[in-house]
Amino acid sequence: MTVITLLTDYGVRDSYVAEVKGAILKIAPEVTIVDISHDVGNYDIEEGAFHMARSVPYFPKDTVHVGVVDPGVGGERKPIIIQAQGAYFVGPDNGLLAPAAERLGVERIYEITNTNMLPPKVSDVFHGRDVFGPTGAYLANGVEPSKLGKAVSDYIRILLYEPKVTESHLEARVIHVDGFGNLVTNVTNKILSNLRVKSGSMFAVTIHGRDYRIPYTRHFSAVPVGELVMLVAGGGYLELSINRGNAQEHLDLKKGDRVNLTLIR
Amino acid sequence: MTVITLLTDYGVRDSYVAEVKGAILKIAPEVTIVDISHDVGNYDIEEGAFHMARSVPYFPKDTVHVGVVDPGVGGERKPIIIQAQGAYFVGPDNGLLAPAAERLGVERIYEITNTNMLPPKVSDVFHGRDVFGPTGAYLANGVEPSKLGKAVSDYIRILLYEPKVTESHLEARVIHVDGFGNLVTNVTNKILSNLRVKSGSMFAVTIHGRDYRIPYTRHFSAVPVGELVMLVAGGGYLELSINRGNAQEHLDLKKGDRVNLTLIR
Amino acid sequence: MTVITLLTDYGVRDSYVAEVKGAILKIAPEVTIVDISHDVGNYDIEEGAFHMARSVPYFPKDTVHVGVVDPGVGGERKPIIIQAQGAYFVGPDNGLLAPAAERLGVERIYEITNTNMLPPKVSDVFHGRDVFGPTGAYLANGVEPSKLGKAVSDYIRILLYEPKVTESHLEARVIHVDGFGNLVTNVTNKILSNLRVKSGSMFAVTIHGRDYRIPYTRHFSAVPVGELVMLVAGGGYLELSINRGNAQEHLDLKKGDRVNLTLIR
Repeated sequence: MTVITLLTDYGVRDSYVAEVKGAILKIAPEVTIVDISHDVGNYDIEEGAFHMARSVPYFPKDTVHVGVVDPGVGGERKPIIIQAQGAYFVGPDNGLLAPAAERLGVERIYEITNTNMLPPKVSDVFHGRDVFGPTGAYLANGVEPSKLGKAVSDYIRILLYEPKVTESHLEARVIHVDGFGNLVTNVTNKILSNLRVKSGSMFAVTIHGRDYRIPYTRHFSAVPVGELVMLVAGGGYLELSINRGNAQEHLDLKKGDRVNLTLIR
Repeated sequence: MTVITLLTDYGVRDSYVAEVKGAILKIAPEVTIVDISHDVGNYDIEEGAFHMARSVPYFPKDTVHVGVVDPGVGGERKPIIIQAQGAYFVGPDNGLLAPAAERLGVERIYEITNTNMLPPKVSDVFHGRDVFGPTGAYLANGVEPSKLGKAVSDYIRILLYEPKVTESHLEARVIHVDGFGNLVTNVTNKILSNLRVKSGSMFAVTIHGRDYRIPYTRHFSAVPVGELVMLVAGGGYLELSINRGNAQEHLDLKKGDRVNLTLIR
Repeated sequence: MTVITLLTDYGVRDSYVAEVKGAILKIAPEVTIVDISHDVGNYDIEEGAFHMARSVPYFPKDTVHVGVVDPGVGGERKPIIIQAQGAYFVGPDNGLLAPAAERLGVERIYEITNTNMLPPKVSDVFHGRDVFGPTGAYLANGVEPSKLGKAVSDYIRILLYEPKVTESHLEARVIHVDGFGNLVTNVTNKILSNLRVKSGSMFAVTIHGRDYRIPYTRHFSAVPVGELVMLVAGGGYLELSINRGNAQEHLDLKKGDRVNLTLIR
């Protein structure tokens, strides 16, 4: 069965997510729907893009990813389909889908224009239910994207901060704080490889005027319970964590904060 | 595959929802289960009824809706099935199911009395798992409701506030606050049509002693970011919102509050 | 279709749960995945074990239960499969799976050692996605556990507090507080039967220096709204509750607190 994933900022107390699922199942009753997240911060396109880009490689071939963090719904922004290698992406053209689609490899882009395929009454403020969900359902059914819209040449990107790397110094940034309080930075596995960081390496970090020396390891329990540790977790980014603790609470850092790291051995 | 929806006030931290799903899948392994909401306020029948009535038109024909906000579980209240046009509703007879069933069109009502069909040990405090879930599963399997209970003539309704409309003045009420802070009122699309409200119309509103003039539009981004706007969102009710903002926090209104609206042009 | 349940402390804002589901669906596209809970307190093995043990009897035969509350991930703790009567359990060998598996009846234990079956790149910090999810998917597909690992003789247990019972006196403990504020104690239905507690029995309890007499009944609405009541809810444990209220807030008790109960008639 084809998988359709959903990522929104709708929350799960309201019936909004359920309405999108109902609309999908009316068209494609056999699909398996998987929630990526519905607790993305309201209107936070960047956070939605982060979760989507992180998770898409782990889904089966031909999965259809429907993403709706859509503050401009009903306005100028275009509804789009991005056909990528082994997956479709459906949602608003506001940058949300771009990092995930690029991670898999963008092939073609379509603007959703064929309103004949959509439910008879399309609301101006709920395209998740009335446009994106149904479009995803048709794609899951094997309908060609060219039947749903017209090919276009480009899509909107969002600015993603890249760390500045100079010799052994990294000017990094917290791009996400997860539910365990792990501080996810924008330093990728690849950057660490180039710097020859390896298990047992040590970073010097100054946070709120206090100096820390934090070991880089392969798993949390390589340091005692309650101690700071840096590692590359499942998403491919360097994280600042505490073994069985909450680094965010301990260090009082938040998304967007800068973290200057120096590799000292 | 037949769809069964679930709406409860169980929350999702406890295993209660999962136990209901397990009980359903034991009887009907092929169904697709969709959560409408499990974060309805504890014992808040009115909120549950709101989410259910809002969402049911968007589900496929023959969906079985199981709703359990059930403060009187094990007591006097009857367990019922409402057969409506194209859907079944299963739950306690306390008003929860009524608005949704009436929205689709009520056809027959049954009291669930055939305990032979239910699991051998029925708890007095968990009818979601032991009565309503299994009953929904049998209905999804095509079992006739008359095999599960006896026909009855009526069901409990809940009082729903209707706005007072006098010429261009609307005495409305906030019936729901959604996850974006949108203030959903009890003013329906139909009332607005009768008053000939259209995109570009303007409402005068006084809230906590302060006067506002708020435009009625078709989508949020018709006003600048951060500005108040009124529109009919996906549920068919007039909402008081802020483009990319949170109207509840800004206006300090809550569910149940009165809002007096005057159409000024 | 075979059911796979998931229980984690990952939360649902991050994409972690979705990545586990994607990894499962790559291997076993036809399974039905049911969430038991993802809001278990971070690293709280005991709470996870509670939810899992409570819910497993309600799932169909041959369900595969994947549990991941795993503070020791990547370290010394073993990844295991417990084959129980009518179900498999997959997760870290840290006590999480033990009470649930024992509730069904443990048959065989395996350490997951056959890394050839797992995805090519196994992270050291995300075994839910890279080890336990895929292992559960293979079991759901009918792969023999002996193909996934080697038989071992034992598994880790966690200490569960048992109440002290002396004549009509029970030295109990709050082992869980649910989403309604019900205080779940470690006093089982069986202990109550031995003491011949029945509907209409009365308990004397002293909490924060205040004396209460609380009736034992079969359902909440046997007492007036707002009054204290004790009953055995769906999980088989004695609970201290308030009809349509929140006992935790009212009594200011929390998980782990002692409650001394005296049966007075």
